[in-house]
Amino acid sequence: MDESGFTTPNGLKETVVCIVGLGLMGGSLALALKERTAGLLAVDKDLSTCWNATEKGVVSQAGDDLALVNKANVVILATPMRVLLRLLDEVAAYLKPGALLLDLGSVKQPIIDKMNRLPESIRAVGGHPMCGKEVSGFAHADAELFRNAPFVLCRSERTTPETLVLVEELVKAVDSRAIEMDAAHHDRIVAAISALPYALSAALALAAGEQAAEDPLTWTLASSGFRDTSRLAGSGPMVMADILLTNAPAVLASISQANETLAALAGLIEQGDPVALHAFLSRAQGYRHEWEEATQIL
Amino acid sequence: MDESGFTTPNGLKETVVCIVGLGLMGGSLALALKERTAGLLAVDKDLSTCWNATEKGVVSQAGDDLALVNKANVVILATPMRVLLRLLDEVAAYLKPGALLLDLGSVKQPIIDKMNRLPESIRAVGGHPMCGKEVSGFAHADAELFRNAPFVLCRSERTTPETLVLVEELVKAVDSRAIEMDAAHHDRIVAAISALPYALSAALALAAGEQAAEDPLTWTLASSGFRDTSRLAGSGPMVMADILLTNAPAVLASISQANETLAALAGLIEQGDPVALHAFLSRAQGYRHEWEEATQIL
Repeated sequence: MDESGFTTPNGLKETVVCIVGLGLMGGSLALALKERTAGLLAVDKDLSTCWNATEKGVVSQAGDDLALVNKANVVILATPMRVLLRLLDEVAAYLKPGALLLDLGSVKQPIIDKMNRLPESIRAVGGHPMCGKEVSGFAHADAELFRNAPFVLCRSERTTPETLVLVEELVKAVDSRAIEMDAAHHDRIVAAISALPYALSAALALAAGEQAAEDPLTWTLASSGFRDTSRLAGSGPMVMADILLTNAPAVLASISQANETLAALAGLIEQGDPVALHAFLSRAQGYRHEWEEATQIL
Repeated sequence: MDESGFTTPNGLKETVVCIVGLGLMGGSLALALKERTAGLLAVDKDLSTCWNATEKGVVSQAGDDLALVNKANVVILATPMRVLLRLLDEVAAYLKPGALLLDLGSVKQPIIDKMNRLPESIRAVGGHPMCGKEVSGFAHADAELFRNAPFVLCRSERTTPETLVLVEELVKAVDSRAIEMDAAHHDRIVAAISALPYALSAALALAAGEQAAEDPLTWTLASSGFRDTSRLAGSGPMVMADILLTNAPAVLASISQANETLAALAGLIEQGDPVALHAFLSRAQGYRHEWEEATQIL
């Protein structure tokens, strides 16, 4: 029993987990958690995905009825942001007292705001695993997706120390690294390192695509540089629209900063000053190297 | 003997090749051409690179004196753009009559303009292999770099049919695919699929880097999306400054188009209209998929 009077399962091995949303993230989490819990259930609106996941033995039971969460100690919401925000209004009616709610949403402040308004019988933690792919759906789920990824955890007013211990065990079980931080802080950072790369990638795909529409040789010459820089543009537009809209102020600030940077770069090219241009580009290279050193990837 | 009265070597096997500039591109070409020519020489201003390349048996002779090109039937200029343009003024004095000049510069119109003014005893073709890495120098040279890459060839007024046949054999020998096109056409395309990805990548590195300077957790959360989108920002600033400056009009047009696209995206986020935003992002995704289909990479 913790201070709120509910029994926390004695570790993941005694916990029944229900994942709501078997897309890329939820599906990958299901694969990574397989055989590490006392039971793995899933809710997904698509019944063929449910059938697929049970048939493959990834989960023991799956269906499109949210009431299934009533069988779980830990419920993980792994849907796009818009659905997530709606589910946070609906799911409380089905949860058993003392159940722990974790979400995987990419923007945290709107989630935490909703978690703070949940009934006091529910415990809730915000989560955001910093991993992904530009493809979506259970078909692309990958048990290794979470390996070595930072997994942000944000406390809500419904977070007790015991719930954090259990969630941290879950994060460790999928080989991610838990990093606790404030929701607003998280949202500012992901605007710069996740939403902005996507926005720039989409801008590139649109600019090059419009040129290719008039000149098909454009695609013939596009090579590894275009491939990597435009990769994120392949992400699902529904998921991405939700992320951009629910984190609008921070995302707009990041896009505006990038636009100013591009305008400054254009100015240096127009001036034709190789020394000033070299200094500008060296600063960009320096930051990229700084990140490489910070993550020890080369 | 071709129509200009010079003897074209009977294929690559009878050709002595001299590569000027043993950086990533020249070094990789040397590795890829090893044992496919009658002799492989190199000129590089850095004597330790010359020593390295001969010691490893990549070339039979290397030095910092441009006069070495006099021993070759085919001279390949593989330096950054600025040096390349200077070399095109200087190299003619050392070439033997009938020698074939090929360059690997990333911008073609200024090169072709200079080639057109070479003595009539010299034959010259512009080239641009569409491959690269964000690292530079002979230490990173890779015999496989050219494999399956498009290799643009641009005719100059010094290009004869026979020279094109020999250059195409060389392109095939390194497993690239020759694509002939007009220099101005090439320069418009690379602005969109090569310079623009670099400019966006640099803008991302600068925006995220400035945030990271104030908040080190920024780097901790930066993951695969940031990694791929910022990869090109790691490119050598000297080489890139040359590319941006020598192709300024087309590069500025591309940056300006990207700026407008980003402003349009920001407008849709501000309006908060999920349907219009979804349509915008779907168009970007569609173009990315179009490129994937065009190159059959998935």
